[in-house]
Amino acid sequence: MAGKKTPLKIIPLGGLDGIGKNMTAFEYGDDMLLVDAGLMFPDDEQLGIDLVLPDYTYVLENEDKLRGIIITHGHEDHTGALPYLLMDLTPKVPIYSSKLTLGLIEGKLNEHRIRAPKFQEVTDGTVLRLGAFEVRFFAMTHSIPAALGVCMRTPAGSVMHTGDFKLDQTPIDGLTPNYQAINQCAAEGVDLLLSDSTNATNPGFTPSEAAVGPALRHIIKNAKGRVFVASFASHIHRLQQVCDASIAVGRKVVVTGRSMVTITRVARELGYLHISNDDIIDAYEVDDIPDDKIVVLCTGSQGEPLSALSRMANGEHKSLSITARDTVIISATPVPGNEKSVAGIVNALSKIGCSIYDKNEALVHVSGHGNQEELKLMLTMVKPKYFMPVHGEAIHLRAHAKLARAVGIPEKNIFVLDNGDTLELRNHTVRIGEPVDSGVVYVDGLSVTDADPVVLRDRQKLSKDGIVTCVVTVSHRSHKTRAIEIYSRGVSFANDEELNKDAQEVVRTRIDRSSEADVGVDQLRKGIRNGLSNFLWSRTHTRPMVIPVVMEV
Amino acid sequence: MAGKKTPLKIIPLGGLDGIGKNMTAFEYGDDMLLVDAGLMFPDDEQLGIDLVLPDYTYVLENEDKLRGIIITHGHEDHTGALPYLLMDLTPKVPIYSSKLTLGLIEGKLNEHRIRAPKFQEVTDGTVLRLGAFEVRFFAMTHSIPAALGVCMRTPAGSVMHTGDFKLDQTPIDGLTPNYQAINQCAAEGVDLLLSDSTNATNPGFTPSEAAVGPALRHIIKNAKGRVFVASFASHIHRLQQVCDASIAVGRKVVVTGRSMVTITRVARELGYLHISNDDIIDAYEVDDIPDDKIVVLCTGSQGEPLSALSRMANGEHKSLSITARDTVIISATPVPGNEKSVAGIVNALSKIGCSIYDKNEALVHVSGHGNQEELKLMLTMVKPKYFMPVHGEAIHLRAHAKLARAVGIPEKNIFVLDNGDTLELRNHTVRIGEPVDSGVVYVDGLSVTDADPVVLRDRQKLSKDGIVTCVVTVSHRSHKTRAIEIYSRGVSFANDEELNKDAQEVVRTRIDRSSEADVGVDQLRKGIRNGLSNFLWSRTHTRPMVIPVVMEV
Repeated sequence: MAGKKTPLKIIPLGGLDGIGKNMTAFEYGDDMLLVDAGLMFPDDEQLGIDLVLPDYTYVLENEDKLRGIIITHGHEDHTGALPYLLMDLTPKVPIYSSKLTLGLIEGKLNEHRIRAPKFQEVTDGTVLRLGAFEVRFFAMTHSIPAALGVCMRTPAGSVMHTGDFKLDQTPIDGLTPNYQAINQCAAEGVDLLLSDSTNATNPGFTPSEAAVGPALRHIIKNAKGRVFVASFASHIHRLQQVCDASIAVGRKVVVTGRSMVTITRVARELGYLHISNDDIIDAYEVDDIPDDKIVVLCTGSQGEPLSALSRMANGEHKSLSITARDTVIISATPVPGNEKSVAGIVNALSKIGCSIYDKNEALVHVSGHGNQEELKLMLTMVKPKYFMPVHGEAIHLRAHAKLARAVGIPEKNIFVLDNGDTLELRNHTVRIGEPVDSGVVYVDGLSVTDADPVVLRDRQKLSKDGIVTCVVTVSHRSHKTRAIEIYSRGVSFANDEELNKDAQEVVRTRIDRSSEADVGVDQLRKGIRNGLSNFLWSRTHTRPMVIPVVMEV
Repeated sequence: MAGKKTPLKIIPLGGLDGIGKNMTAFEYGDDMLLVDAGLMFPDDEQLGIDLVLPDYTYVLENEDKLRGIIITHGHEDHTGALPYLLMDLTPKVPIYSSKLTLGLIEGKLNEHRIRAPKFQEVTDGTVLRLGAFEVRFFAMTHSIPAALGVCMRTPAGSVMHTGDFKLDQTPIDGLTPNYQAINQCAAEGVDLLLSDSTNATNPGFTPSEAAVGPALRHIIKNAKGRVFVASFASHIHRLQQVCDASIAVGRKVVVTGRSMVTITRVARELGYLHISNDDIIDAYEVDDIPDDKIVVLCTGSQGEPLSALSRMANGEHKSLSITARDTVIISATPVPGNEKSVAGIVNALSKIGCSIYDKNEALVHVSGHGNQEELKLMLTMVKPKYFMPVHGEAIHLRAHAKLARAVGIPEKNIFVLDNGDTLELRNHTVRIGEPVDSGVVYVDGLSVTDADPVVLRDRQKLSKDGIVTCVVTVSHRSHKTRAIEIYSRGVSFANDEELNKDAQEVVRTRIDRSSEADVGVDQLRKGIRNGLSNFLWSRTHTRPMVIPVVMEV
């Protein structure tokens, strides 16, 4: 039961240790809301992991309180954990978001065979009562249409969450951030602001998405052959600008790459991407159309090895190829960690000899996140009493905190948290609360489990040094060796027969010595492992994983 | 025997497929020179590989012709293959380079226990007769002192190789590029120019190394606590500027990190780094000195996990620690591929709360390679008849070719080659020659071998999916199963006992079925592999490597 002393708890479960797996719970008495349920893509150390999810144990433990899941926009770092969360939740919890976001989520849930989710469409200006929460949604501009921020009021106080945003006065769909709503909330008082920190280290104001149009039009207009534009599939306003520029100069648009095909279809169906059926053609029709009448919209802006652009650059696409007369526009920037993959594609394209434009050559990309001036403007409009930077790596959160100090928020009212830390808002005053369980969960095939350091350490070792398995059969009674076989994978000496023979000899000596000493099988195994390991180090200066198998017969 | 028709062959063995493993052979009749013998660091795909070398089979096959190895400067992408090459060569071939470069090489050769190499020190202006070659060395400016370019004359024509360079009019040691020598060579005629393409996509003129000084001085002067400066250990002019700025404000310099300690020692001994013994102190002495009297020069500018900066950022350094009052300067830029590691260190430092300066915050780094204006200036000064861009990825070589066209070199006189392609210069005319063996060689522990795709593919698979070894003992006569044991590493289901039991059952069924059909051991193995593989896919949606071992007893 909620009473006068009941706090509003702010519980970040993800999003404070990097750009990804955004998820924040807001709990007041017996009511809880979740804002976003995102995933993170694994980094180079997380070998063989398919996806990284936030540990949402806290949500499951309090699932009876959960009144709704609010999704601010359709990017996977905000939606990707939903299929897993919904499978784990017992109650059927409603999901509140914009039409486009729900459309994109629906596709993902279908892939996971999750039927009939409880979708509740909301839009700019929607006000809902969810348990003790009054939730007001307001439009924001971002690199995907239909992004929303939320302001939540409870008897304990109010919190605003910006979602991801830039402040774009000339967005492609004309839907600017709803400054009126934001300022209305501010006028009513916002105790705590949670705001997007992605670009908090970048000075200035992010250019409008509209700034990209002229560069795209100029390149497409002056191109001699085909034009290929690689972008994020979900960046529908970018795709719209490419389509508009193409049609303006009499070119047809071809769409290739799985996610590009899926998302353009959904976006057209839902009325977010506008291009007539006459102007969009199938990839198998391109051969009937002159090269200078074609623009290809494709995936691959991040250098993904199986993407359409990568396949075309390497001559492996089933229907489309790139020649020296063509033009490629990379209308994106590499996500940190993807720089080398993108450079690989650019090098392959250079060898073809086509013209290549990326954001270093022309204004063919702008960020979807606000820079320092926008972040300060948001802070100044909202005038929150307390501030908590979200959505960033350590450096971004701290840079955002610095901006907040610069606009006059006292240091003690700024909270730079780690995932699992909590805040308690009580009578319009914020204090640090008790931490909750948090962390990461790995999706590895069908297994969705706590991050197991042993598995990853083993994969690291296997990837670096390979593995040698030594199988020995020994007589049960005499411990005499019957047979020794050595199997290796991922080692450079696999075909060195002399080494293999010597290794067997090392093992045989070990076993013979052990059988004289009459040791147990465990000891025998340990002896084989050490003997083989030392032998391989001395001969090869490598330390493969050694698995000793002793079968008594 | 060389005659009138003898060509000068230009044989690039490395350096045309990326920044690394630079090596070019020049052969005229019975005489051959090698310019540079560098290594490349493995990329993310080259799992477990220690180093990548150019395949120098061609050099070994023609070792009797080899009159000398010229090393342009002391970076590892120009020197790192030397220990391996020298061990493989039968004749003791002289190595020609500047005092500093030879000093750095000596240290590396010592580590490989290569004694008494035949070093021949050369300097700006040195002219040597090596077989049929007249070789003239000229000073260049780069991110390491004592860099040299070479101009080689033979009866067939002349070639200039710039080495790595920028055109710095205010280098820290006062030794500008020797424009007089370059123009003298040009006046005598340069048939073919090989020039550094690293920054060929960057417009403008690279700022002088001297431009970094004011920013360093400003930050060090105004810092409250300790100042930590991470840079490349071999960037001795950068280190000099840090030392000068430190001493000017009364701070002592501490050096930490293995390569930083080694190279500063060598550079001081050889007279390239100037700092008095009073001003440089040992790490264990720092506790006796106030924080605002200390500057720490350290390794780690590339985010290397074992570097000094990384250990300090993570609180794991044995004698030095960083606090919120301290300042860290990252006086370098991440080499492509290292962006995430560097961001990891910056995030760790942000959490400490210290001030952090990198090249986005202040002019604390400039490149050591010339930008487009410098490359065009070099082409314009040398006025070569033919041009071959070197030292770059595909995109850099092609961008450099474009610059050459812009300054008037005809397209047909520009050669963008792959490693192993060759040119033949005969009577001042260049043509494409016969290709030679080329490629890469991997150093993996003690093994130095041709790149084995199987080993790398196995490591990739192991790193992603792990490995399951199934050992079965069967009776020799009846093929009846005696025992089944399953060992797995790097799989998420390792502790799932039920799965393990079911897997054993799958294998048992397979064997029993096979023994009825009376198949051979190979068939039996295949059956086990397929059965287990399919079982694991159906239950876990992962495909670990499966090694079936059948021991007949």
